[in-house]
Amino acid sequence: MSPAPVPRGTVPGRRNAITDVPGVRVGHATRVGDGFLTGTTVVLLPPSGATAAVDVAGGGPATRDTAALDLRSGGANAHAVVLTGGSAYGLAAAGGVLEWLAADGRGAQPVGEAPEILLPLVPAAALFDLGRGGVFAARPDAAVGREAVRAAANSPAFAPVAQGCVGAGTGAVTAGMKGGIGTASTVLAGGTVVGALVAVNAHGSTLDPASGLPRAFHVGAEGEFPLTTPSGAEHAAAQHLLAESGRAPTGLELPNTVIGVLTTDAPLDPAAVHRLAVAGQRGMARAVSPVHTRTDGDTIFALSVAGTGAGAARDPVPAVLAAAEDAFARAIVHAVLRAVSVVTPFGRLVSYRELYPRACAALPGPRTLPGVGSR
Amino acid sequence: MSPAPVPRGTVPGRRNAITDVPGVRVGHATRVGDGFLTGTTVVLLPPSGATAAVDVAGGGPATRDTAALDLRSGGANAHAVVLTGGSAYGLAAAGGVLEWLAADGRGAQPVGEAPEILLPLVPAAALFDLGRGGVFAARPDAAVGREAVRAAANSPAFAPVAQGCVGAGTGAVTAGMKGGIGTASTVLAGGTVVGALVAVNAHGSTLDPASGLPRAFHVGAEGEFPLTTPSGAEHAAAQHLLAESGRAPTGLELPNTVIGVLTTDAPLDPAAVHRLAVAGQRGMARAVSPVHTRTDGDTIFALSVAGTGAGAARDPVPAVLAAAEDAFARAIVHAVLRAVSVVTPFGRLVSYRELYPRACAALPGPRTLPGVGSR
Repeated sequence: MSPAPVPRGTVPGRRNAITDVPGVRVGHATRVGDGFLTGTTVVLLPPSGATAAVDVAGGGPATRDTAALDLRSGGANAHAVVLTGGSAYGLAAAGGVLEWLAADGRGAQPVGEAPEILLPLVPAAALFDLGRGGVFAARPDAAVGREAVRAAANSPAFAPVAQGCVGAGTGAVTAGMKGGIGTASTVLAGGTVVGALVAVNAHGSTLDPASGLPRAFHVGAEGEFPLTTPSGAEHAAAQHLLAESGRAPTGLELPNTVIGVLTTDAPLDPAAVHRLAVAGQRGMARAVSPVHTRTDGDTIFALSVAGTGAGAARDPVPAVLAAAEDAFARAIVHAVLRAVSVVTPFGRLVSYRELYPRACAALPGPRTLPGVGSR
Repeated sequence: MSPAPVPRGTVPGRRNAITDVPGVRVGHATRVGDGFLTGTTVVLLPPSGATAAVDVAGGGPATRDTAALDLRSGGANAHAVVLTGGSAYGLAAAGGVLEWLAADGRGAQPVGEAPEILLPLVPAAALFDLGRGGVFAARPDAAVGREAVRAAANSPAFAPVAQGCVGAGTGAVTAGMKGGIGTASTVLAGGTVVGALVAVNAHGSTLDPASGLPRAFHVGAEGEFPLTTPSGAEHAAAQHLLAESGRAPTGLELPNTVIGVLTTDAPLDPAAVHRLAVAGQRGMARAVSPVHTRTDGDTIFALSVAGTGAGAARDPVPAVLAAAEDAFARAIVHAVLRAVSVVTPFGRLVSYRELYPRACAALPGPRTLPGVGSR
């Protein structure tokens, strides 16, 4: 047994992404225009799978195969995790991922004599973005799921992960402001890596009402968030613009959710992996308020890619849980900072970088998505 | 408050089916041949929905939206329940049901100003029957789900329910014997109705090893199961034939599950509805042994169609729970008695009525399904 890593200031991985965890790949499928403003994101695990757990903290989840992760069954081995728009309808994306995995030879073999019978485990959670692109029925289906898992499989190891209004974050909205998807990672002193990927569609606000900075700004590593504190004038103007946007019609409010995935290469038993998912909920609480409301789905999947051999720990070292809290909160900040304004048939969804242009002056990348037009 | 009904001998409803509960309809979609031996069954609830709960007692469930039924969220209102073959792949059937319900104007309206945005809640559970028809990928999809919900909607009120090798029971196998789907109901002295619908794919045996009678035979109402006790010779011959069939290859064994639905018109609050689901698990334990193994899915959904007004009881009267236990166990016996032998590409799946022809002499209906042929 190597000594437990010593806690220290946050050190992100090379990509500061969930893909910094060995064997973890991410693929997005994005649908914008022709009534669509939604998408699906797949976290593809090593072919042998990963020890999986889930924690549901919100009152209104839309999920698949969370019951299969119940610790009372002794632990589950998942092959991929799906985060998707489209609410319960969007769960159809998981079907396309199941089919792709089986065609690729991945999954459990429940019937030893029939190796062609493969049963991958693909837990999934959906967020509510119905109608945001203008057409209620324009939501992810199995084909979108296949596209996302294919993109993940075709990405190189340790690839960077696109953030903002892509994949499951495409149609996300949080407290009247444009949401999105974000990622982050932490490397512990002992070399253990913890990664987070989060789609932010929260009912609560991700912003500190006093300063206008993201609530979890101070969780970031040195220089991780290239922001300046908004001036009083910029903050006041932003609040005014946000109030306008908050009055934007229908489909931009409830129900909401934050859905995410945590991965690590620390060898953990199933109950320890569950503590990782719970730690993610605590990180969410640092970045969003109010959080875990009755209309939020707030579902977090956690995975250890290290397998559950004799080395699998019953208790994650405190530094691993702390890293999970921090990485999850930091991923939420990245989701908000990478989100861009979108013109929808309902009106404009303003992004943080548009609300606080001077505070975000040092942020790279575009500030707006092309309008998705009306149906 | 009317006085609690007095327990008495079991009195089945007019159809002895889950459809004896007012507003509850059932539809099957069955796929046999061309590699298929599977199907989907939908329990369609009143358009305003029903108070829903779930209990998962097996170690290997395949489910959708069980987390949405968590009592900690205060209770959920479901619009339909899906039981399906196809394991996790078959959960796609629920997507077709969601689309049909929304097109029919059913579902919650999460966004008041956008009445076209409808979000039905459709919890679902799947059983493992992959490959039993000869083709691994021949499983229920959204179209099969749509066919089943349409069949339910087009059925008259209080319609009889087809049993045996139809819908979710089509490909079911239990302990090497052909399984199926069954239903039963009980009317309490006060007029309250409790109904059960169960797809029997159990790893454990539904038969009393000593007598060869179904384990829950004695739970039946007077004359409910027209069986005679098998002679020693018939029982011995059946055990021999079953052992042969038990050696039938691939796809006929693990994983297994019993999935079912309980409904009542008793006004119950969500926690009381959950007790109904738990009672169903106890009924299952009377009809199957061993039960709730790590490889069983054993998932029961319970629903009260009476709504949760001030009249909703916090505790189901004991007679309601007793009726739920009995109805669930009796539905399992009906599933076994109505199942028919099937010729599959793997060999013959023998039914109870073929194993015990003399004991079943008084049972109506066919003894075999047309063979499903080979791929």
